Amino acid sequence: MEVSARNALKGNVKALVIGAVNAEVTVEVAPGIEIVAVITKSSAERLGLAEGKEVYAVVKASDVMIATD
Amino acid sequence: MEVSARNALKGNVKALVIGAVNAEVTVEVAPGIEIVAVITKSSAERLGLAEGKEVYAVVKASDVMIATD
Amino acid sequence: MEVSARNALKGNVKALVIGAVNAEVTVEVAPGIEIVAVITKSSAERLGLAEGKEVYAVVKASDVMIATD
Amino acid sequence: MEVSARNALKGNVKALVIGAVNAEVTVEVAPGIEIVAVITKSSAERLGLAEGKEVYAVVKASDVMIATD
Amino acid sequence: MEVSARNALKGNVKALVIGAVNAEVTVEVAPGIEIVAVITKSSAERLGLAEGKEVYAVVKASDVMIATD
Amino acid sequence: MEVSARNALKGNVKALVIGAVNAEVTVEVAPGIEIVAVITKSSAERLGLAEGKEVYAVVKASDVMIATD
Repeated sequence: MEVSARNALKGNVKALVIGAVNAEVTVEVAPGIEIVAVITKSSAERLGLAEGKEVYAVVKASDVMIATD
Repeated sequence: MEVSARNALKGNVKALVIGAVNAEVTVEVAPGIEIVAVITKSSAERLGLAEGKEVYAVVKASDVMIATD
Repeated sequence: MEVSARNALKGNVKALVIGAVNAEVTVEVAPGIEIVAVITKSSAERLGLAEGKEVYAVVKASDVMIATD
Repeated sequence: MEVSARNALKGNVKALVIGAVNAEVTVEVAPGIEIVAVITKSSAERLGLAEGKEVYAVVKASDVMIATD
Repeated sequence: MEVSARNALKGNVKALVIGAVNAEVTVEVAPGIEIVAVITKSSAERLGLAEGKEVYAVVKASDVMIATD
Repeated sequence: MEVSARNALKGNVKALVIGAVNAEVTVEVAPGIEIVAVITKSSAERLGLAEGKEVYAVVKASDVMIATD
């Protein structure tokens, strides 16, 4: 499946925190560069997420903001 | 200003496309790793965005999805 | 690629409007049931979208609201 | 109240999972077609959500992605 | 229609900019307090938006970030 | 840090509910006008959020909908 979301950064699951409804997934996409996702707990289970697993962090372009110092 | 958004990736503006309402900003956060943002044209102007400028790509954790091959 | 987004509704592109930065895609997922997406113009081009093409409308669960009459 | 969100799919609540902050609502919009929403627990309570209740799944067009096989 | 979105701020349309696909709507919710929305052009037309019109700016709680100085 | 998000409303934290993964933050931006945010629990901790603290409610323009009566 190819998705219209412009951003798909490859990395590995570095941390996984499971709540009642949601799960927080930390993905390391490069040394020292991490992206944190909050997805539903059942999606985390369906995808078989676990520390070390290779995944993509996917983000729609309209959900990205730009900041300057 | 410090923002609750969990993700703020530092990089440089690599490309900028301006429309009537929106602008598309491509940020290179590491060699070969790019993040594309669609923000309003007036935000792009207010921040003085231009190719080469140092910026952050900011994303709320709930806007990140996880994909697996 | 399998995505954490909980919702992926199969359908056909019924209409496509292209702007300078964005494109509006209308997907018919069942007779009389349509879902409208706004994605970037370049994503629309990359996916080769055209009227009639079979696609999925994908939505993250945290982006869905519930309304009652 | 009429909302700018382009998508409002009518259906019935098929499942409801309540967490500390959020609730996961599964809406059946047609036989075999379900949409899952994560909303705040207090919104779920305010709307009086319960299995079988008739609701709308509402999605902003900019939150819909398109995927192809 | 009652919506699960936790935030609905009443105000008046102060400015309206129309693009090919999207429209930018500025709503004044209190003296000196404005909220800017980008919605589809066709939603702006369907709702009959015009300067001065009374509207609500509606935002899902998961789309609000918190910042500190 | 200056952010492209068009909306940053200044206010005070009026209520704070902490879950396993997320936190719900109610910000009073003017007398009688409140905005509710759901952010990650760790962001709430990192920002040192507490009742009464001065904060900004930040929202991207593409995440705002318009509703009419």
